[in-house]
Amino acid sequence: MTSTPTAAIIIIGNEILSGRTQDININYIAKKLTNAGIKLIETRIIPDNHQIIIKTVNELRAAVDYVFTSGGIGPTHDDITSDAIADAFGVSNSIHPESYKLLEDYIGKENFNLARQKMAHLPQGSTPIPNPISIAPGYKMNNVYVMAGVPKIMQAMFDQILPTLQHGNPIISKSWYAFHASEGKIAHDLEQIQHKYLNLDIGSYPFYKNKNQNGITLVVKGQDKKAIEQAAQQIYDLFKQMGYEPHQGEPS
Amino acid sequence: MTSTPTAAIIIIGNEILSGRTQDININYIAKKLTNAGIKLIETRIIPDNHQIIIKTVNELRAAVDYVFTSGGIGPTHDDITSDAIADAFGVSNSIHPESYKLLEDYIGKENFNLARQKMAHLPQGSTPIPNPISIAPGYKMNNVYVMAGVPKIMQAMFDQILPTLQHGNPIISKSWYAFHASEGKIAHDLEQIQHKYLNLDIGSYPFYKNKNQNGITLVVKGQDKKAIEQAAQQIYDLFKQMGYEPHQGEPS
Repeated sequence: MTSTPTAAIIIIGNEILSGRTQDININYIAKKLTNAGIKLIETRIIPDNHQIIIKTVNELRAAVDYVFTSGGIGPTHDDITSDAIADAFGVSNSIHPESYKLLEDYIGKENFNLARQKMAHLPQGSTPIPNPISIAPGYKMNNVYVMAGVPKIMQAMFDQILPTLQHGNPIISKSWYAFHASEGKIAHDLEQIQHKYLNLDIGSYPFYKNKNQNGITLVVKGQDKKAIEQAAQQIYDLFKQMGYEPHQGEPS
Repeated sequence: MTSTPTAAIIIIGNEILSGRTQDININYIAKKLTNAGIKLIETRIIPDNHQIIIKTVNELRAAVDYVFTSGGIGPTHDDITSDAIADAFGVSNSIHPESYKLLEDYIGKENFNLARQKMAHLPQGSTPIPNPISIAPGYKMNNVYVMAGVPKIMQAMFDQILPTLQHGNPIISKSWYAFHASEGKIAHDLEQIQHKYLNLDIGSYPFYKNKNQNGITLVVKGQDKKAIEQAAQQIYDLFKQMGYEPHQGEPS
C-alpha cells in the first residue's frame, strides 16, 4: 500500500439506475475518505446482476486498496450481493453462526424464517461488520467491504470501518469564490498557478445560482499545507487583479 | 440496436470523487431514460484523467447503444474531456468554425481569448449540442454524447438529445408501500410473485423515516402493462394478508 491508499465504491441497485432513488451514499463515503487521506479512484453504479457484480468486484479489488459496496444484502429475492461476492472470491456463502445467533435473538426464533436467515449467510472467510440499526451485518472480505444500501445503515457500517483503514496524509483544500467571475477570463493565469504547484489539484467550478449570483469557485486541494496556502493566496490575488471580490469557502 | 436500447453514464470530475459535490446529474438522466424505455446499464464516476477517460469511454461505447458523459468541457486547465474524447476516437480536437463564431459573437471578439476558444474545439466528426445557457456547446461523437457538468447546462443539453434517441417501450412501474412492514416477513411470498412474472423486475426497498415510520416499498417495473397490474394487485393482497395497510406510490 502506498502512502496514499486508494479506494473504489460499487453501488449495487437497479433503483439507482432506474432513477427511482437519488444516491447519497457515494457522497457520504467520498467526503470521509478524502478527510482520511484515502483517494477515491472510481465509483460504479451497477444493476442487481450476479455476473456483473462478480466482474466489477474482481476488477476493482485488484485495482485499489479498498473497495466499498453498498446494496443487496437484505432478505428479499432481489438481494443477491452476498452470493455474488462469494463467487467473486470462489468461496461458499454459508451460515455465519455468530451472526445467525444475533439475528435469531433479535428477530425471535418463531419469526426467523429462511428469508431472514439469508442475512446470516456470509462468504466463507469474511468478518462481519455490525449493524446497530437492524442487526443484519455487513462484512469485510479481504479488501472488500460489503455494506447495506439503506443510507442510515450504510453510514453506521462505514463509520465503524473507517477507523480500521490505513489513512493517508489528510487531503486538505482551500477555496475562494467570486460572484460574476468568468472562467474564461481567469483560465490562463489559473493554469500558470497550477503549473507552479504540480503536487496540488486546482479545480475551477462555475456556479449558477440565479441571474445575479453566477460566479466561480476555485479549489486548491492536496496534502502539502504550505503549498496550499501559497496557491490559495495567488488565487485570491488573481480574483482581485481581475476586479472580482473573493470570498473564502463555498457559496451557500 | 435491440428493442430496448441500452445506455451508460460517465461522470467526469474530481469534485464528485472528493465529495465536494453531490452529483445530481445521474438521477436526472436515469429518470428520463427510464421513461423513454432506454435501459441504463451502468454508471461510472471517474477523475479528470486523460488515460482513464479514454479507457472508460472506449469500454462503454462498445458495450451500450448510448454513452452520456458529463463534465470537463469548460475553458480551464482542468477541463480535459474533449482532448480525451478525440484521442478515444483517434481524431483531432480542433476548432469547429460554426461554434467558434457563435462563441465569439456571444463573448465579444476582444474577450475571446485562447482559454475561451478551447470551448470551440470539438473532436473531428462530432456534431455540436447547443448550450442555451452559456453557448459553449456539448457534442455527439458517434454514440457518445458529451455534456457539461453544471446541472443546469447538462439538463438543457440532455433535453435536446433525448428526442433524437431511439426509444424503447416505456418502462412503467407501480408501487405499494406499507408502514411497519418487514422485508423478512414478506420475502418468501414476494419471491413467488417474482417467479410468476419473470419479465418484470420486482424490487423491495425498506425506508427508515423515523421510529414510527419505518416500512417497505415494493416496486413492480417492466414493459408489460397488464402483467404489472396483476403483479401489483398480488403485492397489494400480500401486504393485506400480512396485516399491513398498503398505500399506493412512494412514501413522501
